Amino acid sequence: MHKALFAACAVVFVIAAAKSPAQEPLTMSGVLRSSTASDWRQPEPEDLLYMQLDKGLVVFELAPDFAPRHIENLRSLADDHYFDGLAIVRSQENYVVQWADPGAGSSAARNLGQAKNELEPEFYRTREGLAITRLDSEDAYADEVGFATGFPVASDGNRAWIAHCYGTLGVGRATAANSGNSSELYAVIGHAPRHLDRNVTLIGRALLGLQHLSTLPRGTGSLGFYESAEERTPVRTIRFGDQLAVADRIQIEVLRTDTQTFSDLIEARRGRREEWFVDPVGKVGLCNVPIPVRVIE
Amino acid sequence: MHKALFAACAVVFVIAAAKSPAQEPLTMSGVLRSSTASDWRQPEPEDLLYMQLDKGLVVFELAPDFAPRHIENLRSLADDHYFDGLAIVRSQENYVVQWADPGAGSSAARNLGQAKNELEPEFYRTREGLAITRLDSEDAYADEVGFATGFPVASDGNRAWIAHCYGTLGVGRATAANSGNSSELYAVIGHAPRHLDRNVTLIGRALLGLQHLSTLPRGTGSLGFYESAEERTPVRTIRFGDQLAVADRIQIEVLRTDTQTFSDLIEARRGRREEWFVDPVGKVGLCNVPIPVRVIE
Repeated sequence: MHKALFAACAVVFVIAAAKSPAQEPLTMSGVLRSSTASDWRQPEPEDLLYMQLDKGLVVFELAPDFAPRHIENLRSLADDHYFDGLAIVRSQENYVVQWADPGAGSSAARNLGQAKNELEPEFYRTREGLAITRLDSEDAYADEVGFATGFPVASDGNRAWIAHCYGTLGVGRATAANSGNSSELYAVIGHAPRHLDRNVTLIGRALLGLQHLSTLPRGTGSLGFYESAEERTPVRTIRFGDQLAVADRIQIEVLRTDTQTFSDLIEARRGRREEWFVDPVGKVGLCNVPIPVRVIE
Repeated sequence: MHKALFAACAVVFVIAAAKSPAQEPLTMSGVLRSSTASDWRQPEPEDLLYMQLDKGLVVFELAPDFAPRHIENLRSLADDHYFDGLAIVRSQENYVVQWADPGAGSSAARNLGQAKNELEPEFYRTREGLAITRLDSEDAYADEVGFATGFPVASDGNRAWIAHCYGTLGVGRATAANSGNSSELYAVIGHAPRHLDRNVTLIGRALLGLQHLSTLPRGTGSLGFYESAEERTPVRTIRFGDQLAVADRIQIEVLRTDTQTFSDLIEARRGRREEWFVDPVGKVGLCNVPIPVRVIE
């Protein structure tokens, strides 16, 4: 009925046989349809972070290969139920949503318990030892870009880091590099702010429910901070998956990024073959490649 | 109080004298502070589109150098008050918000009046005759990128087009290239979907109020379409600036993109000199360069 912009996205090309994408229009829906069970992985419960809001649940996958110290500190905070009853303190248009203790820095600040107050930054790691599925594309910010352990990554040959794409989960910090400790977190809800790469510790990315954050009213204060307590959205709880009862965990699968299927998906996004496209661009940017997620009911 | 991610953004460096950016830390706030009246332009009322929602106003600047036919058709529709009482029909996470006649295609469809039902697409224009302030950056999608007539643009040397950055305003269409007619419009509310470049007619970009669209609840139907009338947000009115009483127009100024000041701003975004940045990236992507807007009270 509507002139659905990009409606052909919903068209599913049935790809005959197990793998003959070269003979068929290679679309993302076709690639996913022909994927097999081994193309998907189930993140371990301890690598999932559940953020419960009144409106729904946001689930992040954590990246221990990039930020083990910040994730360990976060685990300690979640163990202590540190975040329960805290709030979303910032929502900045085309940028980030951030949650924290509104009383931080005052006498009403919550105790961090066993968690450390300062942490050595994990802005990047060594490139060595990291298997990157390279994306053959130009990138404004880095020499090498691709995917590793389920995350969009960039590298300068020696160092590697998670790229600030839409939905990434980061650790807020003050001016001192070691002032981030996972007690204040943010999610990207706008065009990839890649200038933050290597300047903040990124610890994961949203798999489900990011719309509960991205649709929050923007804060009217400087940098999108809310100006009054009434404007803030409460955070009910934040838990690691293994801190939840088994019945409360969601069975999530993420498409592996080191497979032929994922390479096919990249090519399907690069050369859009859906009928709607008049002039397929033949190119794709790092943050424009989706890493598909599915929930097992 | 908070560990404001990127708090240094708010720090204003006072730049002495009219123009000595080379001697001072070149930050965006510093560049704007040292800008002069001639660095700014007031878009003509006929080049502004006012979209009134219950929650507030969204103002777009139109791009007649790129899409004169679609803007002329849109003017005819706005003249007829075609959009008044229509609705936002789609809100897709990390993608677009779209508005249209919910009855389009049915017997309840509104009449387009003098506006044409089909229009020759304006997916691109000739590169010739367009003054582009080039951005010296790699781009995943185009050989040449930069800014022209106040818009982020890309080019392959022969053709030039507006780039699908956050906030761009486009014309929805069905599969046929000529099926867009400005009666269904969308705004980008996610990471730049540059694969749509040259496949849709873009007619402008948001200057003010985009948060009224980006924070709308996401539609739960395919492609983010709302599944019931109750979910849709009404559109009160859509008017060109010159169709409004003078008292109802907003005095908006946009930083010129063909000036030394704008080049300074690009460099300030490329090499972040704010104290907060530990490892300034030294690079900037097309859709990461803001084109500043201010309202004259």
